[in-house]
Amino acid sequence: MENQEHQNDIFFSDEERQALYKTIFSRRDVRGQFKPDPIPDAVLSRVLYASHHAPSVGFMQPWNYVVVKSNEVKQKVHSGFRKAHEEAANMFDSEKSKIYRTLKLEGIIESPINICITCDRTRTGPVVIGRTAIDTMDLYSSVCAVQNFWLAARAEGLGVGWVSIINEEALQEALAIPKEIVPIAYLCLGYVSHFHNKPELESAGWLDRMPLEDLIYFDQWKNSKTSETSPLISQIKEDSDFPKING
Amino acid sequence: MENQEHQNDIFFSDEERQALYKTIFSRRDVRGQFKPDPIPDAVLSRVLYASHHAPSVGFMQPWNYVVVKSNEVKQKVHSGFRKAHEEAANMFDSEKSKIYRTLKLEGIIESPINICITCDRTRTGPVVIGRTAIDTMDLYSSVCAVQNFWLAARAEGLGVGWVSIINEEALQEALAIPKEIVPIAYLCLGYVSHFHNKPELESAGWLDRMPLEDLIYFDQWKNSKTSETSPLISQIKEDSDFPKING
Repeated sequence: MENQEHQNDIFFSDEERQALYKTIFSRRDVRGQFKPDPIPDAVLSRVLYASHHAPSVGFMQPWNYVVVKSNEVKQKVHSGFRKAHEEAANMFDSEKSKIYRTLKLEGIIESPINICITCDRTRTGPVVIGRTAIDTMDLYSSVCAVQNFWLAARAEGLGVGWVSIINEEALQEALAIPKEIVPIAYLCLGYVSHFHNKPELESAGWLDRMPLEDLIYFDQWKNSKTSETSPLISQIKEDSDFPKING
Repeated sequence: MENQEHQNDIFFSDEERQALYKTIFSRRDVRGQFKPDPIPDAVLSRVLYASHHAPSVGFMQPWNYVVVKSNEVKQKVHSGFRKAHEEAANMFDSEKSKIYRTLKLEGIIESPINICITCDRTRTGPVVIGRTAIDTMDLYSSVCAVQNFWLAARAEGLGVGWVSIINEEALQEALAIPKEIVPIAYLCLGYVSHFHNKPELESAGWLDRMPLEDLIYFDQWKNSKTSETSPLISQIKEDSDFPKING
């Protein structure tokens, strides 16, 4: 007899697993390729459900979704971006500042829908299972909801751009979000002309992708191993072109 | 001619999209069903690559992975958990405290591998594109790496449990992580006897899953709509059993 409390299919087929990796490796932060095409409600509903099924500490589900289509509201957010962007440009040394100013960093106006994912830290009361020792856990839950949203959007052929160059206060003001609610991510959403093969900052030579094997320690911080001493490191080096699924 | 800077396949098949949703909706926080079976390096390598391809602010890739197999280190972490767990139990009112004490909340010792995902806030220097206005963006990047890890693990048939009932200082001490590195998530990883159909806190009656339509606002905070006024809300209500993929 079937146990209704257990999932029936623990294992995924190779094709299913491959589809997840395809999503993860082809997801991009999109700034410049948005098309005005409307997003069907059936698609948006799926993406939002995916986000809503993120893990959350103590099952508190601290997120809300502010769906922005109003041009007036977008303009306010964009003005907050411009202010923060100008402040940021002056923080880099002159060479980096020059590159920085050429980068397209948001698609607030062009994307048909913007969505702000928030964190209500008071949801379900002051004491939350799993948030008693690390009080940022609720913020982290909303970030997981952002990542689920992003991946589902990618699988639906939708680009997502996370606008982080804006003060939280400017976002709160533009969207009438109360002080005690944290705006975790302001996302631009829309169909795109194309997805880049690589992150734009990588292609622009801003930074390289770090070799994964350099990021792995064993049992203690800084305790690294070589291919000679660790089969895992050897495997990771062997897999170094694994993510190039769009070749 | 093919543009090598663009991805070739923007669109996913229905089957590929369905595989992503299956992963997202069947992912669980696993505490009690770990099996001791070893995890092949080929599998672990894939899961780590998926994590490493999370979005990161300014492409800073602030994460490291401390892979823990040592029983001595696990015991130290477990002792940190026990201390924080005891402190937590006393924070709930008496009825909730009674339930709390019956819950299995971690699988540190039973799971064959524990992995700590961290955030190095100094990586790539003091000024990071996209972190100039919101200084928690680097922490959020490491959380995205956690969520990618979790989803890839689920697709590989591996359970993941996030142990958050432990002070960051206790984690740093057990793993020799320097003060300036933030331990974002301590994860238990292993094959499992089964995955639960629902989050355990939901089954235990601790909290219900919130209706998604109650979490959606339009253009401004608290500006909600009904099925009558919003096709999106109507669609979301219609889709309310969408995530029950294991039926």
